[in-house]
Amino acid sequence: MTWEVLSIIGTIAFAISGAIVAMEEEYDILGVYILGIVTAFGGGAIRNLLIGVPISALWEQGLLFQIALFAMTLVFLFPHRLLQHWHKWGNLTDAIGLSAFAIQGALYAVEMEHPISATIVAAVLTGSGGGIVRDLLAGRKPLVLRAEIYAFWAIIAGFLIGFKVVDQSYELYILFLLIVVLRVLSYTYKWRLPNRRFHVPSNKNTMAG
Amino acid sequence: MTWEVLSIIGTIAFAISGAIVAMEEEYDILGVYILGIVTAFGGGAIRNLLIGVPISALWEQGLLFQIALFAMTLVFLFPHRLLQHWHKWGNLTDAIGLSAFAIQGALYAVEMEHPISATIVAAVLTGSGGGIVRDLLAGRKPLVLRAEIYAFWAIIAGFLIGFKVVDQSYELYILFLLIVVLRVLSYTYKWRLPNRRFHVPSNKNTMAG
Amino acid sequence: MTWEVLSIIGTIAFAISGAIVAMEEEYDILGVYILGIVTAFGGGAIRNLLIGVPISALWEQGLLFQIALFAMTLVFLFPHRLLQHWHKWGNLTDAIGLSAFAIQGALYAVEMEHPISATIVAAVLTGSGGGIVRDLLAGRKPLVLRAEIYAFWAIIAGFLIGFKVVDQSYELYILFLLIVVLRVLSYTYKWRLPNRRFHVPSNKNTMAG
Repeated sequence: MTWEVLSIIGTIAFAISGAIVAMEEEYDILGVYILGIVTAFGGGAIRNLLIGVPISALWEQGLLFQIALFAMTLVFLFPHRLLQHWHKWGNLTDAIGLSAFAIQGALYAVEMEHPISATIVAAVLTGSGGGIVRDLLAGRKPLVLRAEIYAFWAIIAGFLIGFKVVDQSYELYILFLLIVVLRVLSYTYKWRLPNRRFHVPSNKNTMAG
Repeated sequence: MTWEVLSIIGTIAFAISGAIVAMEEEYDILGVYILGIVTAFGGGAIRNLLIGVPISALWEQGLLFQIALFAMTLVFLFPHRLLQHWHKWGNLTDAIGLSAFAIQGALYAVEMEHPISATIVAAVLTGSGGGIVRDLLAGRKPLVLRAEIYAFWAIIAGFLIGFKVVDQSYELYILFLLIVVLRVLSYTYKWRLPNRRFHVPSNKNTMAG
Repeated sequence: MTWEVLSIIGTIAFAISGAIVAMEEEYDILGVYILGIVTAFGGGAIRNLLIGVPISALWEQGLLFQIALFAMTLVFLFPHRLLQHWHKWGNLTDAIGLSAFAIQGALYAVEMEHPISATIVAAVLTGSGGGIVRDLLAGRKPLVLRAEIYAFWAIIAGFLIGFKVVDQSYELYILFLLIVVLRVLSYTYKWRLPNRRFHVPSNKNTMAG
């Protein structure tokens, strides 16, 4: 029950974040819905494909789907009234979504007895894959690859669940809270992962990998 | 039989639209073929993955594949002679493709007894998914998300087929014609879906969703 | 055994090429790892989905995965020391990866008794699909679609294997060497496939395909 409520909060937050990006790019109302749906459900869909969850699982989320559509419709109709405080509570609900979805994704992979690499990838994709597809569809460089600490917390969740450090029900709740707090802290204090500029002048046009 | 002819027309139109985008971006001949193939078959491939159609179905379209390659070769060899009137008849054949593929995609989903959400997504992906991947591979913002009314007609098809409003063979033909006409009208008279500009200043760099 | 060594060389080369692109785009360390992993394993993952190889195959490559992570960590820590000669030996190892992966991809498709179209697509995706996803995630137009001759050699491999021209073990080794040499030559002498500029003025905003 609790996880369902957390999934609903996360779905709404992800759908709204997709809708906002679409409105920032001046996409039409259909683009708003598509980007919202992709942000909310795209990460889970890619995860299902990669770890072999039967695809029908995607289509059993009818209620979440309707909630997402309803939230996006409200945002499209009343953007200024509803979103003027989004920079405050938007980040908290988004952190709840990241944490709940990363844990849920990791649990799926463990259930299917995949190795640790799959568990981590499942956690990252479920937590941040939707946002990556959203950014690609908006013509932007994916935010999670370059700024702030976001997907890293999903990796932590995947790691702890994959190695069964976190296993019991109450441990999963503690992990959930921890990830939410760490994400909010990393946003509030603008924590960054290290980066390193590098340029191979004669390489740029040669490696097609 | 009729649907096969419509599929052929649509495949040619989609493949040529991909080839044109690749030539506009000055891609080489391989890029032209790849963008054309992706536009013609990419939407159906993603749909198959998401609704669980056995993937072998993708590879049974050998004839369509050869027709697409042949059409693209002609366009690459004689672009100016063949395409000077493309803006006229290109839109009609593209509308035929949109309509035929959206209906075909929706029927696949209904056959697999998926819920209405899957039927609509299948119609949209089959009708316009290839064009979205084409635009991404060309480094463009997907056209269907921001301009004119295109994928919307696929949604209508998915909706009517999903709720069995349209069911009989003759009804499907009427729906096909209706979608073609609506698409041509929306192109000719530049119909637009509503859009709404919005910008959350402090949000842009914070939501990694 | 030999193919395993070639796979390792290719995986390292692809992972490093992804890491370099991420550092050029000033992505953080997580972005570096993600782009490297996607470049090394993304092409094979998409191929598995499209030709129906059980997805678990992706997760049985634990050793390759660890090697890729190790190589990227070294590159991130000592980029200038390790990569100053990358434009020399980077292209050779990348050519080894292209050749080995294209052959391996084509063999997968043949094993599953797919038609020739699937064999060629499997060769191209395994050899260059990871690089395409890498470029998309970096916000770049995919290199293989516009410059130099790269994916074309994978097509040759897919064609020869699909039509059983190359079948025996020693023939596969010869094909491997041939593709490596052709790729290195096409890089060294800047061979290009033909391209053709074209622009349909009134078309650009109308075909949503």
